[in-house]
Amino acid sequence: MRPYERDPAEIYRQSFATVRAEANLDRFDTGMQSLAVRLIHACGMVEVADRIAYSQGAYLAGHRALKAGAPVLCDCEMVGAGIIRRYLPSDNQVIVTLNDPRTPDHAKAIGNTRSAAAVELWEPHLEGAVVAVGNAPTALFHLLEMIDAGAPKPAVILGFPVGFVGAAESKAELAARSRGCEFIALRGRRGGSAIASAAVNALAAGLPEER
Amino acid sequence: MRPYERDPAEIYRQSFATVRAEANLDRFDTGMQSLAVRLIHACGMVEVADRIAYSQGAYLAGHRALKAGAPVLCDCEMVGAGIIRRYLPSDNQVIVTLNDPRTPDHAKAIGNTRSAAAVELWEPHLEGAVVAVGNAPTALFHLLEMIDAGAPKPAVILGFPVGFVGAAESKAELAARSRGCEFIALRGRRGGSAIASAAVNALAAGLPEER
Repeated sequence: MRPYERDPAEIYRQSFATVRAEANLDRFDTGMQSLAVRLIHACGMVEVADRIAYSQGAYLAGHRALKAGAPVLCDCEMVGAGIIRRYLPSDNQVIVTLNDPRTPDHAKAIGNTRSAAAVELWEPHLEGAVVAVGNAPTALFHLLEMIDAGAPKPAVILGFPVGFVGAAESKAELAARSRGCEFIALRGRRGGSAIASAAVNALAAGLPEER
Repeated sequence: MRPYERDPAEIYRQSFATVRAEANLDRFDTGMQSLAVRLIHACGMVEVADRIAYSQGAYLAGHRALKAGAPVLCDCEMVGAGIIRRYLPSDNQVIVTLNDPRTPDHAKAIGNTRSAAAVELWEPHLEGAVVAVGNAPTALFHLLEMIDAGAPKPAVILGFPVGFVGAAESKAELAARSRGCEFIALRGRRGGSAIASAAVNALAAGLPEER
């Protein structure tokens, strides 16, 4: 067997050093740099740095919301499972409503997916929340529709749906018309729950100089 | 708001049709084709088809093991969260030992990561199991070390660790010397829990003609 690195601190150090050496992070401020490093670390692709779209205040808005105790609303269980609980600064709630017993019937009632129906159940928690979409384009599309219809606005929308039908389009819609919300997204088909969780973890862990 | 597809069946149909139209799947038999389609669907990248390494009997071995009731051993909670339980043919156990209370001390004792230590706790379940590694290269490396030292062999090893330190190397080791185990892996840095879960879901759901 070939030798391999077994020290977790050294693995993290080498990983983040490789990302910083290979990725093009110049356009980001310190907060977004640390977030971009975590996104890249989660997917193994330095080139995704070039596809990150975001609003200028997104990093600080998300970081402050978590410090103030905002809940994290996730579109699927995997995103929730990837959030490192010890990073969360205020014992924040992580809410996933996809498997709520009301969701399947509600999806039929509104003529949309279960993922979209689950987003409607976020409404009591939406104001000032951190929203993390790591799977379903319909969840992101429907959230924007709800905000258009007057739903409360989250502090930041983390838009990372993945795939071939609606993922690129929903993120383009968010980046073009974010409805006055701060946002961070990965343009195109790529995304996924590990990337969405990594974005939450980056907002939660804060800047290196705060640690 | 632009119009978007809201019908889940139609979203799946269009997604899989796009993958089949764009990905190069000719080298795969039917089982591996359906697995490759699910991997691509999980990450939004058709080009990963060209980086899948596998042993000839891997798909059937994994599928039969699940039918026979084999447990699924996952290296992190996210992989477990991504497994679609209703696909599992025999109410199979999904086992994640990363957060077992014994894991941190055991990691110190063996001088390896928590992920590697957690793999040692799989030992009573390893024989004939489906192993899904979607995060930690050290989990895959250490599993191979354990098999070298005489641990029972799983039915199939799904190798999808991700990242910059050891991911490519651990998967290259698996593909070059699989210790007589069936395996499916994604060469290089890319991987992750969504892809590992998708591989399990593909083995569980079986071939389209069986449904």
